[in-house]
Amino acid sequence: MGKYNLDVIFVYGGEEPNMHRTYLMNGADAGGWVIKKRGAEPVAIVSPMEIDNAGKSGHKIYTPFDFDAGEIRQRHKSDLPAFEREYMAAVFDKLGLSGRIGFYGTADVTRVAWLIHEVFPNLPNVEVVYDFQAGELFQDAYETKDPDEIIKLKLAARLSAEVVTATRDFISQHHADADGNVVDANGQPLTIGAVKRFIRLQNLERGLENAHGMIFAQGRDAGIPHSEGEDDQTLKTGQSIVFDFYPRMAENGYYHDMTRTWSIGYATPEVQATYDQVMGAFNIVADSVKVGDDGSLYQGRVNDYFESQGHKTSRSHPGSMDGYNHGLGHGLGLNVHEAPHMSNYTRGGALAAGNVFTIEPGLYYPDKGYGVRVEDTVYFDQNGVLHHLTDFPYDLILPLKG
Amino acid sequence: MGKYNLDVIFVYGGEEPNMHRTYLMNGADAGGWVIKKRGAEPVAIVSPMEIDNAGKSGHKIYTPFDFDAGEIRQRHKSDLPAFEREYMAAVFDKLGLSGRIGFYGTADVTRVAWLIHEVFPNLPNVEVVYDFQAGELFQDAYETKDPDEIIKLKLAARLSAEVVTATRDFISQHHADADGNVVDANGQPLTIGAVKRFIRLQNLERGLENAHGMIFAQGRDAGIPHSEGEDDQTLKTGQSIVFDFYPRMAENGYYHDMTRTWSIGYATPEVQATYDQVMGAFNIVADSVKVGDDGSLYQGRVNDYFESQGHKTSRSHPGSMDGYNHGLGHGLGLNVHEAPHMSNYTRGGALAAGNVFTIEPGLYYPDKGYGVRVEDTVYFDQNGVLHHLTDFPYDLILPLKG
Repeated sequence: MGKYNLDVIFVYGGEEPNMHRTYLMNGADAGGWVIKKRGAEPVAIVSPMEIDNAGKSGHKIYTPFDFDAGEIRQRHKSDLPAFEREYMAAVFDKLGLSGRIGFYGTADVTRVAWLIHEVFPNLPNVEVVYDFQAGELFQDAYETKDPDEIIKLKLAARLSAEVVTATRDFISQHHADADGNVVDANGQPLTIGAVKRFIRLQNLERGLENAHGMIFAQGRDAGIPHSEGEDDQTLKTGQSIVFDFYPRMAENGYYHDMTRTWSIGYATPEVQATYDQVMGAFNIVADSVKVGDDGSLYQGRVNDYFESQGHKTSRSHPGSMDGYNHGLGHGLGLNVHEAPHMSNYTRGGALAAGNVFTIEPGLYYPDKGYGVRVEDTVYFDQNGVLHHLTDFPYDLILPLKG
Repeated sequence: MGKYNLDVIFVYGGEEPNMHRTYLMNGADAGGWVIKKRGAEPVAIVSPMEIDNAGKSGHKIYTPFDFDAGEIRQRHKSDLPAFEREYMAAVFDKLGLSGRIGFYGTADVTRVAWLIHEVFPNLPNVEVVYDFQAGELFQDAYETKDPDEIIKLKLAARLSAEVVTATRDFISQHHADADGNVVDANGQPLTIGAVKRFIRLQNLERGLENAHGMIFAQGRDAGIPHSEGEDDQTLKTGQSIVFDFYPRMAENGYYHDMTRTWSIGYATPEVQATYDQVMGAFNIVADSVKVGDDGSLYQGRVNDYFESQGHKTSRSHPGSMDGYNHGLGHGLGLNVHEAPHMSNYTRGGALAAGNVFTIEPGLYYPDKGYGVRVEDTVYFDQNGVLHHLTDFPYDLILPLKG
């Protein structure tokens, strides 16, 4: 808070997921607001119904009735704007909130706009901070993990690798028919939908959640980085399949993120060559990335490498659907995407001990019917040494044993 | 849009879930912005990676590169605020956005505050609307369902009842030990965590997701309306259990919401009497609720009824943890909570044909170790006739057959 010269952090929100709130609440998941004055512990304001959930944070918990919400509401009845103005003023008054206030969270845009424009300007001795940079405050906090967090992230990595292993083994028990369709012992085709159901069951058994879905995309779809794949598509031999898996642990909210590209039975020479180039880029980064450098340096090296092989990149051809068209990596922890970012432009701040981030180069040719991406989550330990959290083989070919 | 005199609806957001965006995108789930000019179809701006997902909306899809994002970024490099200002101006200019603009969505609060304060005031011929009421625009749209939506909601109801049936039957296969613990054939205690795992598996088999979790709370926890229950707690006979189940269908995003209170083996006279009173309140509403009335009328009737029996309510004792301390019901559809609301104060607008909403009275006594709630989702058909979507018996006693 000192860096951004803030006197108060106010995390606002309703029942939507709200990562900054969850973070300040030590993982407790309760709708409401969290307020932290500089040098003091956070406090929360939640509905009486949420007291139990919020209490798990260890913080002092208020309800709206500690700020006379019932009496104020009675006075204004259905005039909700009048209620909200007076209630917000009561909260600021009773908690002694004044000075430079940073306003954070995930919330309804219209409500936030109304508060900013109609309510906060009328609160006494309050300066709401509209500095773009102050928005980075929570990212600064997320960016560096302590050893306890690394232990949780290691568990997320191990459970994720178990699911990917089980998925690979499940597919490999099938065989191919004369047309290259992957089928079971009864000749029934294996669809992407069936594979995803299998994966969800594996997750369930390990306490993993797919809060942001998953990507299991074949052929042309694998060539669109965020295409999640079509459930009714049958798996086929000799097609690139991008399996991007980013579950989180239900127990503590920490994510893992890994991607493998598979080609069932065999790979076409074109997919194999593209795969080798992606692994080349992956190894360039994994073998050289070090603390003190800006993440954008490595995005630049991967751009150099792919461009030297004749591929378009988002640097040489912004907006291109072909070639290498995304960032090299991102931090993760309680968010699936957070600082540090390895992209074309720096956001300030070098890579540091305690950073946990992905390395995920890829090459995409949707019109040619394929795409390739390989991704590990890695971290720098307290001595700045790089370790891979993801532990799963890089093989392209997924052999059928069925 | 006419009601609020808006020329443009701008739904802003990032990768967070964003219900207004999903609604305008016809269910397509893609990060980005959706913009609708009055009298025109919505258009979306998404990253090139999201084109496939966004295209499922049927709308025209732009990427940032259609607004020269690459060139603007190149010019400003790491000066992100400068980039965002110029990029937003380019979007407004090229799409011809002007006049009264309603700003909607779910997004990062700090970013929204910055846009409102630093960017929008500088856009030419733009008046951002800060009217509190304009925030209700999407609620107006959600509030009335058409027959196609009712068909989806009926399916969600049927699948939910299947899961609750399976859960009841699963529990009933156990037996009680000498201390009243519910145990399996090997004497192993049945925990809430095990029941929730069973429920998640049932969901998975039916394509249901627990986007907002579930409540399976026993004893004192059942007396805290939003307590989700403790995983390591063993089920016991003669304790009230509140099972509040609000899954959504993965396929189309529609929710169901139902609650049953169970007491395994037998009920104490106190819990049975409280249960009878809750069912009394439930029946008062279910037997009388009709189109044209304001939802707050029925909250008032339930307050009257419970108060006449000596219970505190949120009307007589705002902020009380005991008695009846929440709203009688809420609309649901693509949101688990939406208009209409049946609470102490009206939000304007009477109940109408096509409304889908819950009826969920409850009585809570955490210090006495119990709570009771019963909830059905109901709807008014096009003729204003009430139907229950929830179809599951109201029995309090869950007998053990094990």
